Amino acid sequence: MSIHGKNFIGNELSAKGDKSSKIYDINSGDALNGDFYHATSDEVSTALSLANSAFLVYKQKTQNQRADFLDAIAEEIMNLGDELVVRTMAESNLPRPRIEGERGRTVGQLKMFATLLRDGSWVEASIDTALPDRQPLPRNDLRKMLRPLGVVSVFEASNFPLAFSCAGGDTASALAAGCPVVMKAHAAHPATAELVARAILKAIESCDLDPGVFSLIQGKNYAISTQIVTHPLVKAVGFTGSERVGMILQQQIHQRAEPIPFYGELGSINPQFIMPNKVNENGAEIAQGLVASLMMGQGQFCTSPGVWVVIGDGKSENYQTFITSASEALTEQRAGVMLTPAMCAGYNAAVEERKTLSGVTLLATGQAGNEQECSASLFATDLATFAKSPLLQEEVFGFSALVVRCADVAEMMQFVSLLKGNLTASIHGLDSDLAVSKELSLTLAHKVGRLIYNQMPTGVEVCASMNHGGPFPASTNIRTTSVGSEAIIRFRRPICYQNMPAELLPSLLRD
Amino acid sequence: MSIHGKNFIGNELSAKGDKSSKIYDINSGDALNGDFYHATSDEVSTALSLANSAFLVYKQKTQNQRADFLDAIAEEIMNLGDELVVRTMAESNLPRPRIEGERGRTVGQLKMFATLLRDGSWVEASIDTALPDRQPLPRNDLRKMLRPLGVVSVFEASNFPLAFSCAGGDTASALAAGCPVVMKAHAAHPATAELVARAILKAIESCDLDPGVFSLIQGKNYAISTQIVTHPLVKAVGFTGSERVGMILQQQIHQRAEPIPFYGELGSINPQFIMPNKVNENGAEIAQGLVASLMMGQGQFCTSPGVWVVIGDGKSENYQTFITSASEALTEQRAGVMLTPAMCAGYNAAVEERKTLSGVTLLATGQAGNEQECSASLFATDLATFAKSPLLQEEVFGFSALVVRCADVAEMMQFVSLLKGNLTASIHGLDSDLAVSKELSLTLAHKVGRLIYNQMPTGVEVCASMNHGGPFPASTNIRTTSVGSEAIIRFRRPICYQNMPAELLPSLLRD
Repeated sequence: MSIHGKNFIGNELSAKGDKSSKIYDINSGDALNGDFYHATSDEVSTALSLANSAFLVYKQKTQNQRADFLDAIAEEIMNLGDELVVRTMAESNLPRPRIEGERGRTVGQLKMFATLLRDGSWVEASIDTALPDRQPLPRNDLRKMLRPLGVVSVFEASNFPLAFSCAGGDTASALAAGCPVVMKAHAAHPATAELVARAILKAIESCDLDPGVFSLIQGKNYAISTQIVTHPLVKAVGFTGSERVGMILQQQIHQRAEPIPFYGELGSINPQFIMPNKVNENGAEIAQGLVASLMMGQGQFCTSPGVWVVIGDGKSENYQTFITSASEALTEQRAGVMLTPAMCAGYNAAVEERKTLSGVTLLATGQAGNEQECSASLFATDLATFAKSPLLQEEVFGFSALVVRCADVAEMMQFVSLLKGNLTASIHGLDSDLAVSKELSLTLAHKVGRLIYNQMPTGVEVCASMNHGGPFPASTNIRTTSVGSEAIIRFRRPICYQNMPAELLPSLLRD
Repeated sequence: MSIHGKNFIGNELSAKGDKSSKIYDINSGDALNGDFYHATSDEVSTALSLANSAFLVYKQKTQNQRADFLDAIAEEIMNLGDELVVRTMAESNLPRPRIEGERGRTVGQLKMFATLLRDGSWVEASIDTALPDRQPLPRNDLRKMLRPLGVVSVFEASNFPLAFSCAGGDTASALAAGCPVVMKAHAAHPATAELVARAILKAIESCDLDPGVFSLIQGKNYAISTQIVTHPLVKAVGFTGSERVGMILQQQIHQRAEPIPFYGELGSINPQFIMPNKVNENGAEIAQGLVASLMMGQGQFCTSPGVWVVIGDGKSENYQTFITSASEALTEQRAGVMLTPAMCAGYNAAVEERKTLSGVTLLATGQAGNEQECSASLFATDLATFAKSPLLQEEVFGFSALVVRCADVAEMMQFVSLLKGNLTASIHGLDSDLAVSKELSLTLAHKVGRLIYNQMPTGVEVCASMNHGGPFPASTNIRTTSVGSEAIIRFRRPICYQNMPAELLPSLLRD
């Protein structure tokens, strides 16, 4: 299938803007086929108008109709076959098993929301019937349910070209909620986006939906992003990416006349707490486990364990065992290609900067690779240095971790008080650590979205009990999750109907 | 009980700042006893620190313990007896039945949240147990529930000195959620706030809670408000008031390093749609009903019907009957004292400004009163004028309404497309209007928080199915309600626990 590189403005292919520069396959050095056209302001306006018109029809579709649509998208993604896998591998530098797994996750998410829709209970329907004889005042008939917000704008993530991208979790939950989606493709994997958009378009056709329900905006153009998030027709924005870019979007959204929810999932250092007896008994084992978790996807996961908090006086044998094991394990790790050359440069710059920080020691570096590859790195510092270095709370996107040595449990608690918001934290402890772990967990829970015991943070299950969010900067909206079935509520809001005849009620609120 | 006028910083009475000017009883002209002390920056800091310390203890209380606390507050408010009623009447110029009713509502809200807590299901506990044998990957044990955000700042409303003030809906829902409250008293009713704060303090003592759970900040000082909403320890803000003040707070909150939810319930014109056959058959009756709803509390309700959309060509007999009946009914209405002299001045200025607008006609004015009283007013305009006059979408706080004449249903739909967000809208129709009403309701529902059929918007039931919110400017947070049991979720957020031993789990998430 040749790549046309055009924008999907509803079901129209549109190429009014400039061509972007070609994208090269890092591994082969070949230019990937296809030129991509930066969307113009007109194209964006048209996409948003089409989406808004489509909203008025799409929101009236039954839960089953929307469920069928999501299932159809899942089926059409699988119908893209190996071409999607090969193309995504080339654009992301991620290996086949990872991409095949991510495709499974993407399809699984769509199907999960389809199941949720067919169940129906998620709309939180509430009915208080009239009490005409109540004293001192009668009660009117009041019925409430969650209804869709309107047009949703979603930005593709760099690090999940399928599962957090064109038909990823934000899109699936918005479409499930009854909201049309205007998607901004990520410039790192535009052909992947195009292939998935074709799948969505096929599903729109087979389900006989208004094509304004989905548009794909190509190109790397900050003005276009600004236009989208400040447009009056956009009623919510979903974004997964860096704190820097996320906060630019947030500031622009703050300028709107009408406030709208911004669901930004930004940075996280995912601190790992190794409790005193755990480091004494299993120091080598936990160190190796942490290195293995850090290496997943070259550390390019939002839940990558970036900071390891360990109790030790710097000379104790157990602490040294942990440090030595971690360093040895890391030194053996192979270099790897990052998602994009820009991310490789960014990672290397962050590591070099860290090397210059007073009070921070480089413990180990992974194997060197070729010039397109990056090497893992492990640093160490103490609590006092961490406390005075805001830079050390910033996420290094990639496989670099920082050991923070705490003299005792009191210092560990002090570390928690300094901590900004995170997606996750793990407590690694033995039964004999439980009392201290409990004390830690009571405050730590309020700094994270997900608190983990004796497991690594990488691996985010898609289920009802998942929470992928948390205090800022993990998320710009602490009350919501971007993974799992609860993600749908981000794009819904309550509407109350008072004294309505059945004909004017949504069908789920009728007697 | 003499009024001391001091700030409640936890359970310490504090008066470090300047005294405010005395407040006079408009009806008697007497100075109300008590000087009030503007809180200082230090006092505010102390209150917030105490609240944050209290949070760590208060959040661990059981649902039953928090329920007992809310019940105790309700009981202590009733124990204040008639002094509270008399004082609130004097400070608000509202009549005894209204204040007694509002006290009942306030106490009822506290008891409703107590019942909700004892039920427990509202925490949305979700448990996905481990599936160690699942292929290709095992599932970890994941459990999630809603947990409190932290310290909540609440601003008292002018127009509900009890039900949306010191122990009103925001306080009740925040305390129920497990969040300490730092309350900013409204300068219009500081003694009412003091009396209610005493009741809360007694309840804190009888329930043996950390007194940092509640503080009351007195005085009218914008720097203090800024300090509160931008303070890092504050995790959410509740506000009911004007769009102007609400947006000042919103802009300040936007400057924070950590974004937090701002629950501002601001302006609403609550449009009333009189359908074609309704105006033909029951024009006089509906006109009188609208005037009666408008007059409630001198129109100082957030759900006051401020705009009436009627189909007519300006000459048709039915439209004239409606207009004549409305004008006659309004002309008979007695003048009334507003909540404060400033509101009286603001109301009169808005009415005078409206009189000068080209295309806007003054239809009727209510009876004149003394110099402390305001008179009701009724204006009319056509759709074209409404479309080009942004001022006409702004709420006039008080008993002034605007009839917008639409030539036909198409113009009525055009009115809806122009409409900003509102708390409520009502459709008044006959069975023969149902087809048109249905079309109208499908778009109108997305402009409001509550859609009403053949009833007036005033009267906000406190129940599970209520939604008191809506698109901006009705609310700054479209996804939440400030009235009814669902208000509690504004101060909670999901936390997921993975692979946690029972000892480290919140009790509601244990097997």
